[in-house]
Amino acid sequence: MSNAKPSLKIAIAGLGVVGSEVARQLINRSDELALAAGKMIQVVAVSARDRSVNRGVNLDGIDWYDETHKMAERDDIDIIVEMIGGSEGVAVDLARAALRSGKHVITANKAMIAHHGAELAQLAEANDAHLLFESAVAGGIPAVKTLREGLAGNKITRVAGILNGTCNYILSTMETTGRGFEEVLADAQRFGYAEAEPSFDIDGIDAAHKLTILAAIAFGQKPDFSAVSIQGIRDVSSVDFTYANQLGFRIKLVGVAEPGLMPRMETCLLPLDSQLAKVNGVLNAVEFHGEPVGSVLAVGPGAGGCATSSAVLSDLIDIAAGRGGLPFGRSINTLADATAVENCAGPDKPFYVRLMVVDQPGVLATLTGILQKHSISIEGLLQQGRAPGNAVALVMTTHETSVVKLGIALDEMEKLPIVKAKPVAMPIMLADKEM
Amino acid sequence: MSNAKPSLKIAIAGLGVVGSEVARQLINRSDELALAAGKMIQVVAVSARDRSVNRGVNLDGIDWYDETHKMAERDDIDIIVEMIGGSEGVAVDLARAALRSGKHVITANKAMIAHHGAELAQLAEANDAHLLFESAVAGGIPAVKTLREGLAGNKITRVAGILNGTCNYILSTMETTGRGFEEVLADAQRFGYAEAEPSFDIDGIDAAHKLTILAAIAFGQKPDFSAVSIQGIRDVSSVDFTYANQLGFRIKLVGVAEPGLMPRMETCLLPLDSQLAKVNGVLNAVEFHGEPVGSVLAVGPGAGGCATSSAVLSDLIDIAAGRGGLPFGRSINTLADATAVENCAGPDKPFYVRLMVVDQPGVLATLTGILQKHSISIEGLLQQGRAPGNAVALVMTTHETSVVKLGIALDEMEKLPIVKAKPVAMPIMLADKEM
Repeated sequence: MSNAKPSLKIAIAGLGVVGSEVARQLINRSDELALAAGKMIQVVAVSARDRSVNRGVNLDGIDWYDETHKMAERDDIDIIVEMIGGSEGVAVDLARAALRSGKHVITANKAMIAHHGAELAQLAEANDAHLLFESAVAGGIPAVKTLREGLAGNKITRVAGILNGTCNYILSTMETTGRGFEEVLADAQRFGYAEAEPSFDIDGIDAAHKLTILAAIAFGQKPDFSAVSIQGIRDVSSVDFTYANQLGFRIKLVGVAEPGLMPRMETCLLPLDSQLAKVNGVLNAVEFHGEPVGSVLAVGPGAGGCATSSAVLSDLIDIAAGRGGLPFGRSINTLADATAVENCAGPDKPFYVRLMVVDQPGVLATLTGILQKHSISIEGLLQQGRAPGNAVALVMTTHETSVVKLGIALDEMEKLPIVKAKPVAMPIMLADKEM
Repeated sequence: MSNAKPSLKIAIAGLGVVGSEVARQLINRSDELALAAGKMIQVVAVSARDRSVNRGVNLDGIDWYDETHKMAERDDIDIIVEMIGGSEGVAVDLARAALRSGKHVITANKAMIAHHGAELAQLAEANDAHLLFESAVAGGIPAVKTLREGLAGNKITRVAGILNGTCNYILSTMETTGRGFEEVLADAQRFGYAEAEPSFDIDGIDAAHKLTILAAIAFGQKPDFSAVSIQGIRDVSSVDFTYANQLGFRIKLVGVAEPGLMPRMETCLLPLDSQLAKVNGVLNAVEFHGEPVGSVLAVGPGAGGCATSSAVLSDLIDIAAGRGGLPFGRSINTLADATAVENCAGPDKPFYVRLMVVDQPGVLATLTGILQKHSISIEGLLQQGRAPGNAVALVMTTHETSVVKLGIALDEMEKLPIVKAKPVAMPIMLADKEM
């Protein structure tokens, strides 16, 4: 609250979609942002691969660096905004060098924080620097701040989120159009919702990075990407949406973190009336459950230059206004190691199972016999259409069971001549009904 | 980030539902909260009317004050948690005295902040004290923090919220049960969702206090309760839910703040597929629209000791962790006076109109003639059942029109002998469809 308000000097490393938008906002809206920040935020240096790209903003008078790390060496820079990405290499080297020199670091790099968050937070704390990464999780939703500060007084009992807009777009589109995975993915790539190399998104890795960060803040532990169970959306078929709907569910890729359990990304069935089931398209959403608060849901745009730049600006303003705080909300020395969990499958839960079976007498008896042998009880059954002698879909929902037992039963079924394809099983997530 | 971590000493004024829950949390979970806060938060003094009430927490060793203001005089107290309530009197005197003596103030008192927020923020800033009021708006949803910090880099274009759980419960229940307003209100009172004297809730005043605070933060202006247009839910009849539903809408009490327009609480029709329409029962929700972020929605419990105490704890931890900041996110000297608005009705919008008319030939022609005379065009019409010679409901939706013109037309209609009751008109809010 002093009257002396020197400007805050920042360098932006990486001028891709998000980095360019951050530069545009800072340069074109400098007076407005100074009001919120309490001081001017001045872009003094940038670094990017190609100088010749038109980024829709006048960068005259701003120093250009071909060697990113040189920016960390400049004494007059207060904050490095790292928008390069990648869990290793240039981005991590830059963050380390910047923090060591006492510079604050703001990053959208979820992979880096998921893999090196503890080391970087340690460096930040040791050098009285801030390390902020609101933009690394759920784009424009202030999910990190909500968990780290807004709900800081709670014992968090569960965080569940739709954390990857690409997957949510693909699943929503498969459901509404009835089209197949590959076809919808190709469209998503054409529209710019999915990368040319889509595996980071559709295999759940990107979302798992975000879940790692949320779990760390929620439970006061060091981020540990290796302790997350990850499943993507490749195995979902368009017929599963039809069956799920008939049973009162919608298929979503959800990340779940609960105390004492391995955080998990799973493609699962949510009750149609649950809050997360209503979040469609490229939106992200995070549900926070805690005591005493109960449940809070936040929904918003999970990606894109505009939404993500909003999160970067928020971090910048926090530092300018003296609200930078500690990266994970508490001292690194008090963060526990990620919980060692024996049963990574978590507690028993109900499952949706789809089998492609030959339509002939006795099939149902054979299959239910196998389930009975493994003490798995059936909750509901769906068989539609008849095609004597040909393969038809047989859909079952089970009562709560262990994923291990179910896996053994399904392996056994797969070996039968009457079963014509690898069985598909997805957990049914009822917990979100609570809200 | 110093190693010296003296405990933070706090006093709680008012041990009602929220104050008691805050005390319980601080006392029963002190170690856990110290981890999040970085230091112990110690309740050293309390003040309440009745010492004999069992509040489910051991207050032994904590000083009791019958005269609340004496707590503000104690030099060893760092923070006063004001849970007394009321826009004038003891609460305001306490807040003033505490801030003048350099103590931080945390309050759930929306009326006080809506009426005296500018004066108190000035006092806080002048005395290097924090004034935080997360718990004054939307209970457990960190709405104030989201707007003041999480979205601080945005130009806010619209804030819309369901800010009163009592009203939302009454409207949701009227819709699902078909019962009348008075009957549902009586139930809400029995269940503890509504006060014995319910007018603060059902006339929209409580929600308007919260809207005043959100508008101030959103647009960088001093809170000014007198500049808010307020409407409650008393005029809604159970038949309106039926008609609204048939037209694809749901009736909600929504607070809306937009730059340059008078913030307004209005009972309105929302498209069934809009985000706010899906928020039912005692939940609250706030939708933030801004540039560059787009739209972010937050949903959660809007009232009750548990949810509200979560917000108070968040404020306490922010102060303990050095993140207290400025009450409205920027210096009071930079806050504008609330915009003087000439046309408090805002821009033209579509309306739902219900008329109770005699079922006889020529009625429709007469009524549409009046609308035509005032250049109001009809978008849709709904007339159900026949009761020749008796009163039936005639429901119309209009294209965008001014509330003033519509008011004149409805006054004219009301005077006709064929119109049997005061016409009911509610705006249709289409903007939230955007999300």
